[in-house]
Amino acid sequence: MGKDTVYASVDLGGTKVACAFGTADGEIRARRSVATESHRGPAGVLERIAGLVNGLAAESGLRPAAVGMGVPGLADIRRGVTRFLPNLPTQWRDVPVSATLAPRVGCPVHILNDVRMATLGELTGRARASGGRGRGTLAFFALGTGIGGGVAIDGRLRLGPLGAAGELGHQTIVPDGPRCGCGNRGCLETLASGPAIAAKGVWLLLSGRAPQLYEIVAGDAGRVTPREMALAAEAGDDAVREELVRAAGYLGIAVANVIVVLHPDLVVLGGGVAAIGPLLFDTVRATVRERVHMFPPDDVRIEPSLLGDHAGTLGGIVLASMGGLTD
Amino acid sequence: MGKDTVYASVDLGGTKVACAFGTADGEIRARRSVATESHRGPAGVLERIAGLVNGLAAESGLRPAAVGMGVPGLADIRRGVTRFLPNLPTQWRDVPVSATLAPRVGCPVHILNDVRMATLGELTGRARASGGRGRGTLAFFALGTGIGGGVAIDGRLRLGPLGAAGELGHQTIVPDGPRCGCGNRGCLETLASGPAIAAKGVWLLLSGRAPQLYEIVAGDAGRVTPREMALAAEAGDDAVREELVRAAGYLGIAVANVIVVLHPDLVVLGGGVAAIGPLLFDTVRATVRERVHMFPPDDVRIEPSLLGDHAGTLGGIVLASMGGLTD
Repeated sequence: MGKDTVYASVDLGGTKVACAFGTADGEIRARRSVATESHRGPAGVLERIAGLVNGLAAESGLRPAAVGMGVPGLADIRRGVTRFLPNLPTQWRDVPVSATLAPRVGCPVHILNDVRMATLGELTGRARASGGRGRGTLAFFALGTGIGGGVAIDGRLRLGPLGAAGELGHQTIVPDGPRCGCGNRGCLETLASGPAIAAKGVWLLLSGRAPQLYEIVAGDAGRVTPREMALAAEAGDDAVREELVRAAGYLGIAVANVIVVLHPDLVVLGGGVAAIGPLLFDTVRATVRERVHMFPPDDVRIEPSLLGDHAGTLGGIVLASMGGLTD
Repeated sequence: MGKDTVYASVDLGGTKVACAFGTADGEIRARRSVATESHRGPAGVLERIAGLVNGLAAESGLRPAAVGMGVPGLADIRRGVTRFLPNLPTQWRDVPVSATLAPRVGCPVHILNDVRMATLGELTGRARASGGRGRGTLAFFALGTGIGGGVAIDGRLRLGPLGAAGELGHQTIVPDGPRCGCGNRGCLETLASGPAIAAKGVWLLLSGRAPQLYEIVAGDAGRVTPREMALAAEAGDDAVREELVRAAGYLGIAVANVIVVLHPDLVVLGGGVAAIGPLLFDTVRATVRERVHMFPPDDVRIEPSLLGDHAGTLGGIVLASMGGLTD
């Protein structure tokens, strides 16, 4: 494929679908989003995605050579079939996404878990920023409504036979902890996801123990997110700070465990919860220092995402340009 | 190197040093062990190892082209220097093993953590048994006095820059658990190593709650190991069985965590504690089934070591024949 070949990145989310066209070196040529309208079910949503890609092609005059598509959950990447998308309300189990979309958009469609796709983008973006060395070992935690993850070893995304490796949010951190959506107990996701943290904020708000938070959200429990809690902690709500530190400490244990197993160069903490900022990063780093004794833990950098929301876009384009990934 | 080139494997343990000469395809030509006599300190022990290798060479008429040596702890594999060997009583910190030994044995000496070396051997042995396909992803738990580990991704041992990746025994399993020798709290090693399990047996023995165990060890607490506890459980000591299941359950959590992060083909449980047998393996498998929901957990085989004690020997020969490993 030539330097000017254009690829499409599609990111299927619970509320919107984002599409971008770009070249393999990451130059974005066109982009557009639409609402997912997930109530239409898989057939209706896939129809919308085909329309989105074809509409953007017509508008831009560009024809993508392949599509790299991120899906919010588990997919059998070899068959291009979704397995379980927990954040989409209708049943997306065993939907043949690649086979359905490819004929409608006129090119191959490669699917991958959205966070693994973002990990691929982050890895590529960092390799380019550092002058092309892309052999790093990286663990990517995407801290949002759920906690997704991705792992790359020596520059290569670790997928496993189904593309399901890298589920960093489903490590057991507290053996008898809360029941997780996945069926397990005490997964990191039950302790440090956006909803898990917000629930602690709501609890403190409703107990009258978070006066600053009360002010910030004007008494509206529905507006509490980790970001408002970080502001409240900074403004003096010690009980809120304590809950943020507790959640970040659990995240720190998960990070420490990945570090002793893989000794990566880099751990990236991305997603909305990372907006807590220094309190989160400092606590995670302190926990790692406390728990990792196999090597100087400061060897391993713990950083925010370099590309932010753009990681998924770049990852999709890279995925498409590679002709999909297999284990 | 020709097919008949001979390499040496050396395994430095707390009580003995084992040496074997063999060809790259794993055919053993000569072997001998000596007591470590660790009270002599690093210089004295390295002298003994040089004598062992040179003595075996003289006896067999073979000259190894290189030595692959396993050390019980952490080593900087690039520099050939030990960092921390917790089971050797004298101070082995920063001992230049490769530089000291190589001139005395007349060939290069490559060092590696002993369990990573056994992982390399297990991987090689399994690849050969299955007709040469060695691309598997494997996690090796060595359950002994400590809990060591090794991880291979797509047939390649994951080492990290210092050869310290794969420390599966130092994952935090119980955040506020017992203090570990490494400095952390609640490491798997504090919950499921030989001494951790034996201590529970001793407790039950001394409390008069383990009549079968009492009989098996003739009332001698010093003779309690996980193996005797397994016999006692089988003979009807329910309290002993419960403690074995509890320890195996913690191991199951560590195995489940490695599985969701890496989705390996295979998890190997080796070392003396694996002698507990079916009760250990069944409990680990049940825990994994309970906790892993990202893919059918039965995809991942959980098995005893194929090579047993021979894994380290073969690993050393492979390490030597590869001219050492780097990340």
